[in-house]
Amino acid sequence: MTELWQLDPDRALPAEPSTRDLARTIYRHAAALPLVSMHGHVDVGLFAANQPFGDPAELLITPDHYLVRMLVSQGYRHSQLGVPPREGAQGADAAEQDPRAVWRRFCENWHLFRGTPTRYWLEHELAEIFELSAPPSAANADALYDELSATLQREDFRPLALLERMNVEILATTDSALSDLSGHAALARKLGAGRIVPTFRPDSLVHVGHQAWPAEVAQLAEVSGVDTGDYAGFLAALRSRRRAFIEAGARATDHGHLSADTTPLPVATAERIYRDALHGDVQPGDTEAFAAHMLFQMAEMSTEDGLVMQLHPGVLRNHSSDIYRQYGPDQGFDVPVRVEFTRNLRPVLEKFGLSRHFRCILFTTDETVYSRELAPLAGAYPSIRLGAPWWFLDSPEQMLRFRQSAVETAGFYNTSGFVDDTRAFASIPARHDLSRRIDAGYLARLVAEGRLPMDEALDTMVDLAHRLALTAYAAPNN
Amino acid sequence: MTELWQLDPDRALPAEPSTRDLARTIYRHAAALPLVSMHGHVDVGLFAANQPFGDPAELLITPDHYLVRMLVSQGYRHSQLGVPPREGAQGADAAEQDPRAVWRRFCENWHLFRGTPTRYWLEHELAEIFELSAPPSAANADALYDELSATLQREDFRPLALLERMNVEILATTDSALSDLSGHAALARKLGAGRIVPTFRPDSLVHVGHQAWPAEVAQLAEVSGVDTGDYAGFLAALRSRRRAFIEAGARATDHGHLSADTTPLPVATAERIYRDALHGDVQPGDTEAFAAHMLFQMAEMSTEDGLVMQLHPGVLRNHSSDIYRQYGPDQGFDVPVRVEFTRNLRPVLEKFGLSRHFRCILFTTDETVYSRELAPLAGAYPSIRLGAPWWFLDSPEQMLRFRQSAVETAGFYNTSGFVDDTRAFASIPARHDLSRRIDAGYLARLVAEGRLPMDEALDTMVDLAHRLALTAYAAPNN
Amino acid sequence: MTELWQLDPDRALPAEPSTRDLARTIYRHAAALPLVSMHGHVDVGLFAANQPFGDPAELLITPDHYLVRMLVSQGYRHSQLGVPPREGAQGADAAEQDPRAVWRRFCENWHLFRGTPTRYWLEHELAEIFELSAPPSAANADALYDELSATLQREDFRPLALLERMNVEILATTDSALSDLSGHAALARKLGAGRIVPTFRPDSLVHVGHQAWPAEVAQLAEVSGVDTGDYAGFLAALRSRRRAFIEAGARATDHGHLSADTTPLPVATAERIYRDALHGDVQPGDTEAFAAHMLFQMAEMSTEDGLVMQLHPGVLRNHSSDIYRQYGPDQGFDVPVRVEFTRNLRPVLEKFGLSRHFRCILFTTDETVYSRELAPLAGAYPSIRLGAPWWFLDSPEQMLRFRQSAVETAGFYNTSGFVDDTRAFASIPARHDLSRRIDAGYLARLVAEGRLPMDEALDTMVDLAHRLALTAYAAPNN
Repeated sequence: MTELWQLDPDRALPAEPSTRDLARTIYRHAAALPLVSMHGHVDVGLFAANQPFGDPAELLITPDHYLVRMLVSQGYRHSQLGVPPREGAQGADAAEQDPRAVWRRFCENWHLFRGTPTRYWLEHELAEIFELSAPPSAANADALYDELSATLQREDFRPLALLERMNVEILATTDSALSDLSGHAALARKLGAGRIVPTFRPDSLVHVGHQAWPAEVAQLAEVSGVDTGDYAGFLAALRSRRRAFIEAGARATDHGHLSADTTPLPVATAERIYRDALHGDVQPGDTEAFAAHMLFQMAEMSTEDGLVMQLHPGVLRNHSSDIYRQYGPDQGFDVPVRVEFTRNLRPVLEKFGLSRHFRCILFTTDETVYSRELAPLAGAYPSIRLGAPWWFLDSPEQMLRFRQSAVETAGFYNTSGFVDDTRAFASIPARHDLSRRIDAGYLARLVAEGRLPMDEALDTMVDLAHRLALTAYAAPNN
Repeated sequence: MTELWQLDPDRALPAEPSTRDLARTIYRHAAALPLVSMHGHVDVGLFAANQPFGDPAELLITPDHYLVRMLVSQGYRHSQLGVPPREGAQGADAAEQDPRAVWRRFCENWHLFRGTPTRYWLEHELAEIFELSAPPSAANADALYDELSATLQREDFRPLALLERMNVEILATTDSALSDLSGHAALARKLGAGRIVPTFRPDSLVHVGHQAWPAEVAQLAEVSGVDTGDYAGFLAALRSRRRAFIEAGARATDHGHLSADTTPLPVATAERIYRDALHGDVQPGDTEAFAAHMLFQMAEMSTEDGLVMQLHPGVLRNHSSDIYRQYGPDQGFDVPVRVEFTRNLRPVLEKFGLSRHFRCILFTTDETVYSRELAPLAGAYPSIRLGAPWWFLDSPEQMLRFRQSAVETAGFYNTSGFVDDTRAFASIPARHDLSRRIDAGYLARLVAEGRLPMDEALDTMVDLAHRLALTAYAAPNN
Repeated sequence: MTELWQLDPDRALPAEPSTRDLARTIYRHAAALPLVSMHGHVDVGLFAANQPFGDPAELLITPDHYLVRMLVSQGYRHSQLGVPPREGAQGADAAEQDPRAVWRRFCENWHLFRGTPTRYWLEHELAEIFELSAPPSAANADALYDELSATLQREDFRPLALLERMNVEILATTDSALSDLSGHAALARKLGAGRIVPTFRPDSLVHVGHQAWPAEVAQLAEVSGVDTGDYAGFLAALRSRRRAFIEAGARATDHGHLSADTTPLPVATAERIYRDALHGDVQPGDTEAFAAHMLFQMAEMSTEDGLVMQLHPGVLRNHSSDIYRQYGPDQGFDVPVRVEFTRNLRPVLEKFGLSRHFRCILFTTDETVYSRELAPLAGAYPSIRLGAPWWFLDSPEQMLRFRQSAVETAGFYNTSGFVDDTRAFASIPARHDLSRRIDAGYLARLVAEGRLPMDEALDTMVDLAHRLALTAYAAPNN
């Protein structure tokens, strides 16, 4: 392990030499721009504590559901990868206690990740962030474990040091609407305002009928100081919380619903469902109807307070009840379903779609809607922007296909820049860098095919890599 | 502005040098072939009057909904782009009265069109048709306005002169089923028969229940001389109008329905709905059921009179009611929805699908049906042809994807040639030329990959650029 | 015809020179590997009899529904291509009696197949298997007919001789659940066990309500020796038949349903439907509900006996009733519809998805589910593998798109190798070879773009071409 592990500097750029030359120039024009990370899932506590990362498995394997699910799909159990069972889960195995064993399982199965973005990101992280000497393999698993463990103890690999090194200009976390935002307050004192900002996510509160809902509504009253005993109070409490998020630097809200339905209910119906829910008596269909209604309310509140509304529907969460019961959510068993935007968004767009005070960014895991629905909507309504390819679609082939499907109708300027959407802090630079490479390749092809002059390609590249994310997530009425 | 603005002669051809060489040869083999424009929306009155075009904004900006919607999506109002409010529209702004201001808004936002076909077509129009000296920019907006204004006054830029210069062999307009066809009659006297021909579009008549329907049915009676007081008379009047269109040179009908449903109704039910509609009393669901029934009737009439039936379902028109109320239809706010052909077309195909007297050309704005439904249908039923990529899909990436998705199952010979489908007369050559370039690139790849010999690629190119449109739109029973 | 007809050795590899060089190396690494054909429709009787093939039309034209439908789509009737009418079919033409005339019709229309996989496969078959001297054309039709007829009489072109020459390691046929498997028994005696194996296909039995169902259930009792007079007996008889198939070497079952629904019924309901069906009294919706229920039962039996479950939903069979009445099934008039897996498979996956004793391979003709549903399911559940692109999607562009859509989420190792799925025995090598070329091209691009090192690409190539099919179709609990 004396040689250095060097990644191909031209990786993920087009292979054809003349297009590659163009792509390399375009990529380099944007490669060093700071990272604007407006949508992600890193825990704010990581930075507030700023402790050294744990062992290699705890950092890279166990919490990464992309990685865990791939090993599970080939016969490993979550427990073998260090995932702990939920408290009281019946029949669940104890988690592997030896992080070195977990790391070894991963290294031995490195080939499973061939052709996946997980592998691409990991290579970037391991080689460029953590400066490992070689790619993982069964043979070098233990040596790599030791090498990485040593690195993780260094001062300059603590979270805030990495944040600097990664050149992150702004990082948005995703936070429960119930969060007291104390972590963000502490960080703002330390780093200055606007460097790490929260995002308001009320999903759990707007989906009535689940077990924790009554307690969450009570907690909402407590944290907001507004009585949530009736529907009007519920809305007022949400408005209050949005204000608190804005004060803490929030730019946006985030909504993960199964459907994109935004049909509002008559107030009396909303009141009735809310009352029923408080009594633990939710009628069939009411959960979905109320969730749709609340998307409409959230849109309305966005026109009032300027928070950008992010909507990413279409994932059926916890497809396997056994996995959910044993290990909880976010374990790789969320599976997309077909989505529909044209009809479902119409109530919101009829009301707020032309407003200068509304902005909504749309995400999908169903690539069929790019050309059919999302690009035509974003290419007409001033309030709509197209989000970056997300989750399963956040990969080289898919990011390219997004451009090939959406740009011709929506243009580049109705898209909203890259989002990394990750829980894996150390993968953030890899994800942004990959996105820049794919965009550079797409722009290079436009240049090579005489569809765009080079000076405009370079300017567009900077927009895609940096400017668009800043403007898309700025309050639209500013 | 003394230098000439020259477009890249290899634009939109593949970048890889050996494939580009092949593509260039294939493209040049067809580049000079006359244009067969069998489906478009240029107003016949333009040619009947043959007056000079108005100012640059009136020619290129205000009536082009592709262009207007893109500027609207970035915050302009229709009125600022010269679009007049509908008579009596409440709350609508007055249209910008200064065409130079409209033109300037467009030039200043030229970057918004990067990567879109609108930009590609405009470059072709401005550089090659109108011979402007430079691409639009904020800096040269006024100079270009003057330059283009001067050109538009020249005798050799009047519509009929351009038609000659554009090498248009035949141009089909789209005409209301109520049209008296006097414009076409006048043109036939001037240009000879069969140069500019009408297309029969009965959408408004077969959708009962909208406000104008009773008046339109009365007008149908008047123009056809057939009493439309009952359903049988309605059918007879439509048959009569189809004959009048055929006498005026029509080759085809055109049907834009939300769904592709073709389920026929029992005669008594059709009679009942028609009667209800005359009384202004349409039951829920009847509009859709009657529209589906009438598609079946139209198919039957096509087997009788030989008009080729064009069906393009799947666009939800006037998504924003505000835009519709203020500015009317065709303002860029039509948004596709998912479509279904396999089951919906079955009634028509069970009855007429194997008939030698029936031909139906299918269009879609939902690209997912190419490989799943349209190519398998066109690759089996002798009556079915696949229409060209249309509307949102009429762009370089999408035209390529159409070939990649449809040809392997349907072959080239169940497709029906390019259609420009445009209201923008001056964009017709650009659109056909782009289509030829993309097809040349696709064929070149087949040659480069050893999947087709060059002589067959050249022959196929001529078919795609010229022959197939002529044969697909010829009466099938001739 | 003195020159030899030589196919391009680099056909279907990427055109770009540096990527092509890599692809050629990768392809050659796997080109000579034996063929593992785990899913096809060659009649076992062909090998049991081992007679010379008939004339060229009987071998290549008449039984190939890909080829027949393309000629029908351009105006030929099935009868003109030698397809015999069903016994007693009213109004059907007599089949063309002169095979030379059928062959001539095909040769004259060779251009219709440009750009289709049918043409690609035929070129391989004609040039490489049957060593014809030139591609078909109107001019050489008769000469080619004579040339091919002579070849077909040779001893070394009998089925078993070809099987050797084709380097087929294992060939799975598809067999009615009612088959006595005598053909397979005879072959096992001749060739040894495990060379040509049956596949258990119970579709006709699990779809109650069609005309032949009562007779088939009676036949099931007879061949299994189990009384099928009630639902419990029906299940027992199916279990017995599965055992017989396993004894004859079967590795898998095969299920072609319109929907992927796997919802089980209460036993009493299943019993009631079965009873009704025996009495010829099937209620609306019962056929679909029982078919879904039986998919669940089949999954359960797979966990017991280890047969791999193949599911390929989403094709509406016999779209044209006239074609079905006159010529029967499998005549090119089967048309895909949209499919849904995420919700439909949930009952089976909730119960058996994490079991080590279950394996299910999923196929689709709806390419939209690759990235949205199939890859996420296969990339999580250990029991799920992704089947190869199938039927309409078994073509160069589509096989490439399959990799581009599925690999990034599912990885290569949750796919299950190529299946030729063909009735056309002589096309098997062409299909496998084409698949290897496309995979080599895809891997070459990963290498060229720095996304995979060459040694891993070569290893992956062998997996895709050979190993994965063997392991995917091995009983999962072994």
